[in-house]
Amino acid sequence: MFLLNPKLKSDTHFIADLKISRLFLMNDSNYPWLILVPRKADLIEFTDLSFEDQIEVLREINLVGKILQENFGAEKLNIAALGNVVSQLHIHVIARKKNDATFPKPVWGNSVAKPYAEQDAQDLIKKIKSLL
Amino acid sequence: MFLLNPKLKSDTHFIADLKISRLFLMNDSNYPWLILVPRKADLIEFTDLSFEDQIEVLREINLVGKILQENFGAEKLNIAALGNVVSQLHIHVIARKKNDATFPKPVWGNSVAKPYAEQDAQDLIKKIKSLL
Repeated sequence: MFLLNPKLKSDTHFIADLKISRLFLMNDSNYPWLILVPRKADLIEFTDLSFEDQIEVLREINLVGKILQENFGAEKLNIAALGNVVSQLHIHVIARKKNDATFPKPVWGNSVAKPYAEQDAQDLIKKIKSLL
Repeated sequence: MFLLNPKLKSDTHFIADLKISRLFLMNDSNYPWLILVPRKADLIEFTDLSFEDQIEVLREINLVGKILQENFGAEKLNIAALGNVVSQLHIHVIARKKNDATFPKPVWGNSVAKPYAEQDAQDLIKKIKSLL
């Protein structure tokens, strides 16, 4: 059974369920930062997914990456499956801008999260849902 | 025409050409750290690859990830396409261990590279080639 890690839950806003993954908005207004969590039990590594599911997740990465490029001014995409802190498989797809809080450093551990105001988060979620 | 970025070249040792990517060993003995560079001209984003090429690169990620898990004691894989410093598309596949130099932090920017002794690099490259 798919259970969401509590830290992933507390750090994000739910956007939508895609074919394989649950899509979240990271609650950090420093960056347009999306997270894909495949809805399968007991996944840790990207390589734990079947090849068929990996290909579907690849489609989802392409979809949300394109949204970040075309609608959120991404100057560089950062795509990563790390999981050193939260081991449940989750894939970051982040829009980086050359003037963002930490560019060119990675986002992890280099800035303090700036939570969205509730209305701003809801507006963003609505915008992203309309683009899926 | 495929041209390798000079920084990628100077930071790595060549291992082998796979179907799509050139495989390199990062010259940093802190981590078993492999880099895949798709041999196509003018790639920056992972999403610049055709979907067919992405699927081949996915096979290559799985192949080298499995090598790191089965032969290099990876306790966690870190898989990432960032490109904030070197924009040419390259995909990191890194074996993390809980006692490595920076765990659970990401490897980028958190430790100073420890180059391999030449013989150690050659032995590692030989080992990895034998597993491809």
